[in-house]
Amino acid sequence: MKRIVLLRHGESLWNKENRFTGWTDVDLTEDGITEAARAGRLMREEGYRFDSAYTSVLKRAVRTLDVVLGEMDLDWIPVIKHWRLNEKHYGVLQGLNKRETAVKYGDGQVHEWRRSYDIAPPSLGEDDPRNPRFDPRYRYVPAAMLPRTESLRDTVARILPYWNCEILPALAHCDDILVVAHGNSLRGIVKHIKGISDADIASLNIPTATPWVFEFDDRLNYVRDRMLGDPDDIARRMQAVASQGKSN
Amino acid sequence: MKRIVLLRHGESLWNKENRFTGWTDVDLTEDGITEAARAGRLMREEGYRFDSAYTSVLKRAVRTLDVVLGEMDLDWIPVIKHWRLNEKHYGVLQGLNKRETAVKYGDGQVHEWRRSYDIAPPSLGEDDPRNPRFDPRYRYVPAAMLPRTESLRDTVARILPYWNCEILPALAHCDDILVVAHGNSLRGIVKHIKGISDADIASLNIPTATPWVFEFDDRLNYVRDRMLGDPDDIARRMQAVASQGKSN
Repeated sequence: MKRIVLLRHGESLWNKENRFTGWTDVDLTEDGITEAARAGRLMREEGYRFDSAYTSVLKRAVRTLDVVLGEMDLDWIPVIKHWRLNEKHYGVLQGLNKRETAVKYGDGQVHEWRRSYDIAPPSLGEDDPRNPRFDPRYRYVPAAMLPRTESLRDTVARILPYWNCEILPALAHCDDILVVAHGNSLRGIVKHIKGISDADIASLNIPTATPWVFEFDDRLNYVRDRMLGDPDDIARRMQAVASQGKSN
Repeated sequence: MKRIVLLRHGESLWNKENRFTGWTDVDLTEDGITEAARAGRLMREEGYRFDSAYTSVLKRAVRTLDVVLGEMDLDWIPVIKHWRLNEKHYGVLQGLNKRETAVKYGDGQVHEWRRSYDIAPPSLGEDDPRNPRFDPRYRYVPAAMLPRTESLRDTVARILPYWNCEILPALAHCDDILVVAHGNSLRGIVKHIKGISDADIASLNIPTATPWVFEFDDRLNYVRDRMLGDPDDIARRMQAVASQGKSN
């Protein structure tokens, strides 16, 4: 059986401040580093080894991966970083406090921006300094490919080519791959693997730093999945994610 | 002008214990992490940016690189890990205390093992558990290529193909590359770049976590080099390396 383990990064500074992050490159908190180390130890204890690992190009995911590989003594495995694994782009909301945004626009609107499959927040202006075209890490990405906002449908559309052309085929040559990414980019991948509907994906809350193991057969067909760790702890983490972005 | 910055990893647990490390995969000390962070801040303050980075497959080098890139907010650049950048293999000496080894074999013999260009320490046995063929990170390296001991000449001979075929040509497509490696593997690279004689290389002591900048012209010819940082501090670090492995 072949395995891909999906892992959402640990708590970031803006998770803690309850701000929309998206493509903003914020660091992990100390708690986030602790969470990442715990996830690494958990996988080591359960006998996991990885042949290679993928991450987005955002610091909170790269650093989570570094900490995990350090705990597993797998510092030496190849790591591939790609912008297509980045978090959903949150347009003009990036940097705003989720609770304040909810007070201003209403819980319904914010929930729609955060969870509806088709509705994207208002787009960044072309010359907004937050436009990814000004960031050197995207200098070889054609401007037309770079988002200034995204619905989850948009996020899925830019992740799937990378999943289908790079990550899943890599599993043909090895048995175990680790992917560290973000709440919404992972939600897009899980939606695709498990065939979750556009409506049902809204209620999927992926807990931070909780290894989610997907098994595939030798023809790379999805077989089953499970999360590692204590079920009560996982439930608490999922609830914590679900309750963000409410006005009270 | 194009640049390759060479960086020796920060203090490791066995540097601190004054033991021969070689290919043993020991971690950095807290001081080593602090040194790495300082090197990263220094390069950031001096305006360095890197297009990509190379490291050995040993934890103390990978972790030094992770810390440096974190400090420079360059977590997102491609990192390539390769066994050919590993430290010189120290054969049966790996794990032994340098001072005790000097007492037992004499300063002259230990200095010869550490610094002569042609003389390798006694080789590990084929079935010694320290033989790299038992380590999964080398599972795709033909056994005949894997050392069980090395003279510095041997180390240079396995590094140069990688330097000449991968690292230096990569500079044709970009301007700034970072290479994090080890005292002896970097000594081999510097010997090659600067055309240092077999005899003179013995007295070159590369300080830990001190960025050493090599400039190349557009035809990739070596032009000049300099170390970043306070000269007194650099001299102290070079002296600290030189005085290791003496019996008193």
